[in-house]
Amino acid sequence: MPKHIVIIGAHAAGVDAASAARKTDRTAEITLITEEKHCGYSRCGLPFVIGGQIPKFSNLIVFPPAYFQMMKLNLRTETKATNINITNKTIETTDKNSKTETIPYDSLIISTGASSFIPPIKGKEKQEIHSLRSIEDGEKIDAALQKGAKTAVVMGAGLIGLETAIALQERGLKVTVIEMLPQVLPQMLDADMAKTAQEMLEQKGINIQIGKPVEEILGTEKATGVVAAGEQFKADLIVSAFGVRANTQLAANAGIALGDTKAIKTNARMETSAKDVFAVGDCAESTHIVTLKPSLMQFGTVAVRHGKVAGINAAGGYALFTGVLGSSISRLYETDVGSTGLTEGAAQRARIETVTGTITSKTKADYYPGAMPIKVKLVVEKESQRIIGTQIIGGEEVTQRINAISFAIQKQMTTRELSKADTAYAPPVCETWEPLVLASEMVLMKLR
Amino acid sequence: MPKHIVIIGAHAAGVDAASAARKTDRTAEITLITEEKHCGYSRCGLPFVIGGQIPKFSNLIVFPPAYFQMMKLNLRTETKATNINITNKTIETTDKNSKTETIPYDSLIISTGASSFIPPIKGKEKQEIHSLRSIEDGEKIDAALQKGAKTAVVMGAGLIGLETAIALQERGLKVTVIEMLPQVLPQMLDADMAKTAQEMLEQKGINIQIGKPVEEILGTEKATGVVAAGEQFKADLIVSAFGVRANTQLAANAGIALGDTKAIKTNARMETSAKDVFAVGDCAESTHIVTLKPSLMQFGTVAVRHGKVAGINAAGGYALFTGVLGSSISRLYETDVGSTGLTEGAAQRARIETVTGTITSKTKADYYPGAMPIKVKLVVEKESQRIIGTQIIGGEEVTQRINAISFAIQKQMTTRELSKADTAYAPPVCETWEPLVLASEMVLMKLR
Repeated sequence: MPKHIVIIGAHAAGVDAASAARKTDRTAEITLITEEKHCGYSRCGLPFVIGGQIPKFSNLIVFPPAYFQMMKLNLRTETKATNINITNKTIETTDKNSKTETIPYDSLIISTGASSFIPPIKGKEKQEIHSLRSIEDGEKIDAALQKGAKTAVVMGAGLIGLETAIALQERGLKVTVIEMLPQVLPQMLDADMAKTAQEMLEQKGINIQIGKPVEEILGTEKATGVVAAGEQFKADLIVSAFGVRANTQLAANAGIALGDTKAIKTNARMETSAKDVFAVGDCAESTHIVTLKPSLMQFGTVAVRHGKVAGINAAGGYALFTGVLGSSISRLYETDVGSTGLTEGAAQRARIETVTGTITSKTKADYYPGAMPIKVKLVVEKESQRIIGTQIIGGEEVTQRINAISFAIQKQMTTRELSKADTAYAPPVCETWEPLVLASEMVLMKLR
Repeated sequence: MPKHIVIIGAHAAGVDAASAARKTDRTAEITLITEEKHCGYSRCGLPFVIGGQIPKFSNLIVFPPAYFQMMKLNLRTETKATNINITNKTIETTDKNSKTETIPYDSLIISTGASSFIPPIKGKEKQEIHSLRSIEDGEKIDAALQKGAKTAVVMGAGLIGLETAIALQERGLKVTVIEMLPQVLPQMLDADMAKTAQEMLEQKGINIQIGKPVEEILGTEKATGVVAAGEQFKADLIVSAFGVRANTQLAANAGIALGDTKAIKTNARMETSAKDVFAVGDCAESTHIVTLKPSLMQFGTVAVRHGKVAGINAAGGYALFTGVLGSSISRLYETDVGSTGLTEGAAQRARIETVTGTITSKTKADYYPGAMPIKVKLVVEKESQRIIGTQIIGGEEVTQRINAISFAIQKQMTTRELSKADTAYAPPVCETWEPLVLASEMVLMKLR
């Protein structure tokens, strides 16, 4: 009898898990179960549909129905997994017609994702507090814009908050971003780098209010404004971008262990505490390559890597997940902001002593037209002199510099090795001395 | 008495050596001697002045006279070093007024560069065979264009040949590139990747003739065409881009050892066989990081790295040069072509058994407007499964992908490690699965 692999969730992690399982076992029966109507789409693309760069939400569908057919995957949409029985190895589901079913599994992959979250703020129950996690969320924001919203307040200055704020501004709204912490992008950047990003956003006309916790959401039925640090901010559109929380209830109810991060605990094969049950994507924690501690990195790239490993293992193959560094990137207007490894602040919290180097350079030879500024901060562990993180804000080629440092961290490159590295150069694409190399020289000067 | 450091040559390697020496020894007397009138400029920028992207040749001067003053460097232009006496530790010079002088040194840095070279072809003595190595060369080409040249033949399809061909086409000329070898960019690319680059150039209207050795340069006094593989190619402008040869005569005459590459032999401190004599830049060989053999990489980035190490050592400090990988990049129209480490062909010649992986992907998410194609070839040593080279042709972020793989090679990353690497993702700047990672997956499939 063919093995039955059941996957709860059908986005990046779930579908990549299904694909990897299919490639590992050509005969397995593979079933994906999702509450959503739309599946297999790119959440990361949502702000760009709002912003108008991408014409339609349906353009974001990376895995259309034809893909599931081609890969011989059973897809059950609008079906909710209500219970997991890890002893009997079954799950219970309820479809949109309230029909319930008990489905047996040989291997189960939990890919329940994460949900937008609003902290306990007065008025949080009000209507039309928008988030931007799903196509449905996006359509609601779009509808509000069509109805003539002119002003917006975005609560939260993380990646999604800023990308949404920019998208709304590109649609003509006057946008205010309110952040409790004293800086933008607190997960990605240290305060010094965040200041550079914030100034850029402000120059573009976004009103950024940092260090201001939202205390109340105003409005009678519908949200019409917020109070933050005692100040009122009224707006036609209220967006909640406080962040997301891993969807762990189903797993926890089944007795599957959660980890230090409160997401589902996994080992290097993406196995949970329950036999033949795996967890992947935004609901699953993994190990940080620098701290070697459990870490929850809710990124699309992590999700697909998780999915691939779990899919292979669930189908009887063997694959290991080698950890996360939190490499991330965002294009904010014409400026790319990226980060990998630990910030200076995160290192401090992990009790790692660091030396940092920060430089400002250009993206092309000084004499070449169109050279854009680039700022690099390198974070180095003091004793080993190993690189443990970088933050980069610049006009070009930031993503691959992030990846280059990600590789360097993974291979335990020291700052001296980086300062000696062989790099490519041509006037239209970079400076003779690569900014990453210059940043490592700055660190070396401090280490002397 | 302050140490006297003498540097022969005042471009990238020489000036960076002088700067590093100055930073190491604040009191040393530092003298740079150059035959040229212009010094401290970027040779790599010359094609872009011809092409019109950069207004004037003088824009290329990276180190103006004020820099030499600020750094307290004695600069002697239009002065030729005619002899080195390594026993007495002196050099002899002749200036433009034929005045000779004997200059003693404590440390000598030879930075004599390289010169354009034409192989023994019938008619090679003809006038107006242009090369593009110096500002003077550039000015001569520019003058020919001002006089109304409409067609050009470029001999050699290396980086300089192609960059010059594009520049001439951008100035409105009809351009033919003639290459003896059966592919373009033979130093950088394998034939399969070169084909992609060639097709792109041909689509832009450049006539590329590969596998055609130039047998004769035509013309009465002035070159007016060439014969290649029996075929005549007439043109108003004839450009020689056969390559460059290290200027080693001065060193060789002094009894300084040349290496296997026929350039000046150096150790990791950039010392030559003569006591207190260093060699740097296009005239000096170094060690290849993969083959561990002497290697001659005539790139600006290598020159400045050489210069820095030699400058520190010449001034009494201690620095090591850690080797070369030949990382290089060129923007050909809107496409970047880059390479690092060994090509499959170069590995074969070095008797290294390889497995390669080649993929074509996009530079942005599939659904994001403006995504450009990118092609990656990864070269992996078969037994250790270590990455030893890559070639990339793509529309965006090629340079830093080259640097990322350069770091990976330097740190002996395996193809499996690359396939598991943590990378950054956002729809406007890359795909979820990084093309470098996909290429390494291709290799792994072959290794299974």
